[in-house]
Amino acid sequence: MSDAAVDQVEQGVGEVKLSKKELNKLKKQQQKAALKAASQGEKQEQQGQEEGEDVSAGKYGTYKLLQSSQLDKKKDIEFVDVQNLDESLDGKEVWIRGRLHTSRVKGKSCFVVIRQQIYTIQGLLFVGSDVSKQLLKFISTVSKESIVDVHGTIHKVDQPIESCSQRTVELKVNEFWVVSAAEPCLPIQIEDATRAEDPSNELPTVALDSRLDNRVLDLRTVTSQAIFKVQAGICHAFRTSLVNKGFIEIHTPKIISAASEGGANVFEVSYFKGSAYLAQSPQLYKQMAIAGDFGKVFTIGAVFRAEDSNTHRHMTEFVGLDLEMAFKFHYHEAMYTVANCMIEVFKYLQSNLDSEIKTIGRQYKSEPFLFTEQPLVLNYWEGVQLLKENGIDQKEDEDLSTPVEKELGRLVREKYQTDFYILDKFPITVRPFYTMSDPDDSRWSNSYDMFMRGEEILSGAQRIHDPVMLTERAKHHQIDISKIQCYIDAFKYGCPPHAGGGIGLERVTMLFLGLKNIRLSSLFPRDPKRLTP
Amino acid sequence: MSDAAVDQVEQGVGEVKLSKKELNKLKKQQQKAALKAASQGEKQEQQGQEEGEDVSAGKYGTYKLLQSSQLDKKKDIEFVDVQNLDESLDGKEVWIRGRLHTSRVKGKSCFVVIRQQIYTIQGLLFVGSDVSKQLLKFISTVSKESIVDVHGTIHKVDQPIESCSQRTVELKVNEFWVVSAAEPCLPIQIEDATRAEDPSNELPTVALDSRLDNRVLDLRTVTSQAIFKVQAGICHAFRTSLVNKGFIEIHTPKIISAASEGGANVFEVSYFKGSAYLAQSPQLYKQMAIAGDFGKVFTIGAVFRAEDSNTHRHMTEFVGLDLEMAFKFHYHEAMYTVANCMIEVFKYLQSNLDSEIKTIGRQYKSEPFLFTEQPLVLNYWEGVQLLKENGIDQKEDEDLSTPVEKELGRLVREKYQTDFYILDKFPITVRPFYTMSDPDDSRWSNSYDMFMRGEEILSGAQRIHDPVMLTERAKHHQIDISKIQCYIDAFKYGCPPHAGGGIGLERVTMLFLGLKNIRLSSLFPRDPKRLTP
Repeated sequence: MSDAAVDQVEQGVGEVKLSKKELNKLKKQQQKAALKAASQGEKQEQQGQEEGEDVSAGKYGTYKLLQSSQLDKKKDIEFVDVQNLDESLDGKEVWIRGRLHTSRVKGKSCFVVIRQQIYTIQGLLFVGSDVSKQLLKFISTVSKESIVDVHGTIHKVDQPIESCSQRTVELKVNEFWVVSAAEPCLPIQIEDATRAEDPSNELPTVALDSRLDNRVLDLRTVTSQAIFKVQAGICHAFRTSLVNKGFIEIHTPKIISAASEGGANVFEVSYFKGSAYLAQSPQLYKQMAIAGDFGKVFTIGAVFRAEDSNTHRHMTEFVGLDLEMAFKFHYHEAMYTVANCMIEVFKYLQSNLDSEIKTIGRQYKSEPFLFTEQPLVLNYWEGVQLLKENGIDQKEDEDLSTPVEKELGRLVREKYQTDFYILDKFPITVRPFYTMSDPDDSRWSNSYDMFMRGEEILSGAQRIHDPVMLTERAKHHQIDISKIQCYIDAFKYGCPPHAGGGIGLERVTMLFLGLKNIRLSSLFPRDPKRLTP
Repeated sequence: MSDAAVDQVEQGVGEVKLSKKELNKLKKQQQKAALKAASQGEKQEQQGQEEGEDVSAGKYGTYKLLQSSQLDKKKDIEFVDVQNLDESLDGKEVWIRGRLHTSRVKGKSCFVVIRQQIYTIQGLLFVGSDVSKQLLKFISTVSKESIVDVHGTIHKVDQPIESCSQRTVELKVNEFWVVSAAEPCLPIQIEDATRAEDPSNELPTVALDSRLDNRVLDLRTVTSQAIFKVQAGICHAFRTSLVNKGFIEIHTPKIISAASEGGANVFEVSYFKGSAYLAQSPQLYKQMAIAGDFGKVFTIGAVFRAEDSNTHRHMTEFVGLDLEMAFKFHYHEAMYTVANCMIEVFKYLQSNLDSEIKTIGRQYKSEPFLFTEQPLVLNYWEGVQLLKENGIDQKEDEDLSTPVEKELGRLVREKYQTDFYILDKFPITVRPFYTMSDPDDSRWSNSYDMFMRGEEILSGAQRIHDPVMLTERAKHHQIDISKIQCYIDAFKYGCPPHAGGGIGLERVTMLFLGLKNIRLSSLFPRDPKRLTP
C-alpha cells in the first residue's frame, strides 16, 4: 500500500472513508488494544527481571495474525529488499522482511541468514547495550523458514561473505519479529533440496518424488526460483518476438466436442448430460483463426495428453506455445519465422537471465546450450544419412525413436556445434492427417520438427487448406468426418496457405537448462501417477 | 520467407541443400510443368480468339493448390500490405494478396474491393490496351471471400473513397489470380455480419447463433477483428503493468485431484483408471506459489465452470487473468495494485487501440467507458446505502443480485462519473472459506469485487495464510479437509500475508467495449449448449 493510501485509511480521507460512528468504535478498540499491549509489556518486563534487565524489551516477539486491522500500528514501516542491500547503505538503519534461512546462537553471539527469494543477507547480534540475552533466546526458538521482520544497521564488511548473495554488507540486528511461524520440523530441508547430486559427497540430497510431494518448500530453493524465472523469460521473449513480427495473441477452447486429433490420447470430460474432451493442442482452432483472417496468431495455454507415458519428458498436462501463420508461397516462410523466434528466445535468456542460468547450473550441471546465429536445417533423409554413416540402422520412411533422436542430436552437435536444429520434410506416413504432402515427392511432407539437445520441442508443418484434399486425407486416416466437419468447413470459404507449430514450454525450459526431468520445470506437474499437490 | 532463404532454396545453397540427383529430378519436373503450361496457354489463346484477342492472357486465372513446390515460379513476388497503400506509392506497381470483398462488373468496367483484415482498397479495371474482356469475365466468376493475388498500379484519387479504409488511393488492376477459392454460396454475408442492429433499417443483420455457427466467417468482419485486437491488448497491458510492478508469470495445473473450491460447479474428467476435475480457478495454486516464495505472481489461462447458466455473461470456459501477491500489513496494498493495473489497462487501450474501439462502436453502440485516474473504492455498506437512498431494498449481509449490481453501477456512474469501481469489505457470509475476515468487525471480510458498467469483472480478497484458521473455516463451510490437505499444508511452513484476485478476460473485453453478449468476445465460446465449432 502506498503511503498516501495508508494516510487515507488512517486519516479517514480519500476513497476509504470512515463514518464518525466507525471512528469512535475504532478508537475504543484502539484503547482496548493499548491496554492489552501494556499488560503484555508488564509480563515481558517481569520475565526480564528474572533474566536480568531486557534492553531489547518491546523489540522482539511474534505479531498477532496479520489480518489487515486498521488498528495495526506497524503499518508505516518501510522495507528494503534484500537484493538492494549494499555498501551504499553503510551505517543506515533498515527493516527487512524475509525468511529465517538459518540461525545459530552461541553464547552471547547470534548469526542469522535472512532470505528473500534468491537473495540472502547475514545478520548478527552480540549481547550488549542494545541486544539482550532474552532476544537471543527468543531467536533460538524461531523455526527456520518462518517469515520475520528484522530491523538493524547495515555495515560494510572487510571480508566478502561467501555464503550469502549480499557479500559486501551485513546487518547488525536489534529488532526481530515473527510474522508467520513455520512448523519446527520441515519435511525437506532447503539446503538439501538445493544440493547438487554428487556421488563423492555424503551430504543428503532430496529425491524427485519427495521434492514434488513438498513442492511448496522445494520451490523456495534458489534453483527452483531461478528455473521459473527462466520459464517466465521464455514466455516473455516468445511473445515479444512474435508480436514484433505482426502476430496477434489468441485464446482457444480447451473443451472440445470430439476427439478431433485421434481418440487414443484424449481425456474425456462429463459435460452436463453429455460428454466432451480436452484439447490435445490448439491446432484446429489456430488454423480456424487463420481462416478467420487473423493472419499470424499465437497462443500460450494448457494442452492435455492422456498418454500413460511415465518418462522423464512426458506429462499429461503441459503449457503449449503455439503459433500459426498464413504464408505467401512456401511453408519455409513460417518454418524460419518459428526458428528465428526460438533463436531470439535463446538470446534473450542468455542476455537477461545469465545469473539465473548459472545458479541452476550449480545444482544441475550440464553442458552450455549451443545454438547458431542462423538456424541449422537438415532434411529428414540427411538426418537418416548421418545416422547411417555412424552405424545406426534407420529407415527413411520411419519415425525416429527417442534414443535415435538423442543420438542424432549428439551427432549434429559434434558436426555443426549446435544443440538447436530443424529436421525438415518428414515422411508423410508419420504425420497427422492435416499435414500437406510434398508435391515434388510423394514420400515426404511439408513438415518439420525442432530439436534441443536431441529431444523434440516442436512439431510443425504446412497444413492442408483445401477442404477436398483435407477430407480425403482424413478419410485415409480413418477419421470420422462428421466429428471434424466444422473444422473442414472452415476452409470452404477461402483460406490462405498456412503453417505453424506447437512448442512445449516445459521441454524448452528443461532442455535449455539441461535438466534431467521435465517435472522440475513444471510448477505443479501432472503425470499418470501424480495429481497433487 | 526472406529473400535470402528463397535464394537458398532456389540456388540449392545454405541449409536447404539439394543433391545432384534431386536437382535433375526437379529439372525434369520443371520441363514437364513448362509443357503443361504451354498447352494451357494454347487453350487460353483458342478461347481468346473466340472472344477477340486476350490482351490479359497469362495475367489471370487460378493458381494450382499452393503446396510449397520448389518448382513454383511465383515465389519472388513481393507483396505490399493494404494498410500501407497510400499517396506515397502514387504511380507505383504493387502486388497485394487479400480477399475479394466485393466485385461489380458492368459493361467494360469492373470495380473490386480487396480486403486484408480491417483494411480495404478499391481496385478498378476498364477494358482497353492492358485489360481484356476475358479478364473481366473471369473476375465476375470469382466468389466473394476468395483469396486473390492482384497486381496493378496505385493511383491517387481526387475524391476520398468513403467505402474503403484506404481512401486516398485506388489500384488500377491488370493481373488477377485466385489463390484459394471460396464456395459461391456463403452461409452468412460479411456485410450483414458487420451491420449494426437498427430497427429503422430493413437491411439484414446476423443473429448471434448464426454468427457463432459460422464463426470463421464472422471473425472476418472488421468488428470481430477489432474486438480480438482489443482483447490481445488487454492481455498485453495486464502483463506489462504487472511485470513492471515485479510480478512473475506462472502456469498452474488445470487438472486437479479434488473439487477443492466446492463440488457443484466442477467438471469431472476421466483420468486413466480414476477421475479428476477441471480447476475452477488457479486460486489454490497461485497461493501455493506465494507460499513457495514467488512474492507476486500472475497467470493467464483457461478456467472452467460447470454452471448451467445460459446468460449473456456466463460461459463454461473462459480466460482468467489471475494475480496474487504477498503484502506487508494491509490487503489494500494488493487491492490498489490490482485496481491500478486495471486503470493502466484501460489507458493502454484508449491510447493504442482507439481506432479499433471506434470501429467496434460503429456496429455495437455504447456509452464511452468512463474511469477515474484514482480508483473509486466504496465499502460494501456504502454501496448498500446508495441503493437504499434510491429506493432499492438491499440487506447489508446479503450478496447483490445481478440486476441490483447493474443498478448500483448506474447510480455510481451518475454520482462519481466512473464505470469502474471497487466494492470493498463484502459480508463474510457470502465469500469462500479461504477469505480473511475483518478483525475489526466480524460481519465483514477483507474482500472486494471490481465492477465495470455495473457487472462484476473481478473477485478478490486477503486469503487466510494461517493453517489453523484455514482448517477451521473450511470445516465451517463443510469442506472435506482431506481433499484440500496439500493446500492447507502449504501454509504450515511460514507464509506471508497475501491477497489477489481473478479477472475474466472476456468480461473485461465485453464491458470495456459495451458489448451485450460475452460470446462476442470469445473466439470460440463454450456454454452449456455450445461446444462447436
